[in-house]
Amino acid sequence: MPKPSHRDKLLQIGMQVVHERGFRGASVRDIVQAAGVPQGSFTNHFASKEAFGLEVVELYLANARGLIHATLRNEALAPLQRLRDYIAGGVRGEQDLRNGCLLGNFTAEANDCGEALRLRVVAAFAEIQHALAACLRAAAQSGEIAAATDCDETAAFILASLQGAMLLAKAQRSPAPVQRFEHVLFGSVLRRPDATH
Amino acid sequence: MPKPSHRDKLLQIGMQVVHERGFRGASVRDIVQAAGVPQGSFTNHFASKEAFGLEVVELYLANARGLIHATLRNEALAPLQRLRDYIAGGVRGEQDLRNGCLLGNFTAEANDCGEALRLRVVAAFAEIQHALAACLRAAAQSGEIAAATDCDETAAFILASLQGAMLLAKAQRSPAPVQRFEHVLFGSVLRRPDATH
Repeated sequence: MPKPSHRDKLLQIGMQVVHERGFRGASVRDIVQAAGVPQGSFTNHFASKEAFGLEVVELYLANARGLIHATLRNEALAPLQRLRDYIAGGVRGEQDLRNGCLLGNFTAEANDCGEALRLRVVAAFAEIQHALAACLRAAAQSGEIAAATDCDETAAFILASLQGAMLLAKAQRSPAPVQRFEHVLFGSVLRRPDATH
Repeated sequence: MPKPSHRDKLLQIGMQVVHERGFRGASVRDIVQAAGVPQGSFTNHFASKEAFGLEVVELYLANARGLIHATLRNEALAPLQRLRDYIAGGVRGEQDLRNGCLLGNFTAEANDCGEALRLRVVAAFAEIQHALAACLRAAAQSGEIAAATDCDETAAFILASLQGAMLLAKAQRSPAPVQRFEHVLFGSVLRRPDATH
């Protein structure tokens, strides 16, 4: 296996540092020290901290695509099971609870981290929402949810509510808000109107 | 009217600066400059930035209590109208869309801003959730929602989902996520099972 380049180390380790401390909370010095590379490497590889932030979002999204592939797009599972697995995938361990979602963190942290970064995060959210909507359409086709479900609107609702649940989970250091969201989602929002009580 | 003290100025203006730039993004220097007070004032009045952050949360919660009093606890309105007014109150203007909820921002920003600050934010969320639950109980008593509604669980769901909707509204600079949440909440989560379609 080739040795990871300083650039790869800065991105991989830097993403963890940003996830833990926030984008502004993670200084270039913190990132360079955590990655164990010379201070000058950062400026050699990234034009600015914002340029680095854009690549961190890209890398985080690449990981999120892995989860989406294994859950929302996993045709071996029934559509609603894919959705359940996707939701569970966001709060698998202590670290997830402490760090929350990096995209949500970027959004909440400040409104002046740069317009390019905001737009990149919005596009990442849109990509996740698109995968949620495709999964809901499969559920509507298979009859697991009502055929008349507005899958795009419902996907947008799920995306936002899941962000909120993960935010509260992070505040409370407990998976309960995510479990509660799942309960409301499957018990009421996605419940077929003809389902028996 | 007495002249506002440096302490009041630091808190009032500092809260705005923290709301706009995040807690870590707002340096003591930024806060002191925005408040137009001497640099030394900050350390005269606050033992640390975390101590300042705790008072900022307190002040933000005092404002939130004003909104809760005018909406969730406003007995001149039908219970579900109180809830609608409360939700609408969070995204009244351009600034709300840009800044989001300060409590959510504190939570998302980083997980090492100090345990005291995290616990204070969790307590503030609990206070808001309590007011939401009381409003839902009034709605259940008046028959606006099902009598069997678990008001505490539903209040916790609303609190979290509203945080998520405000987070997406902040990302997208649009009130659409909050309106979508309202639509799902009133159209499905709080809908009485015997309601006509």
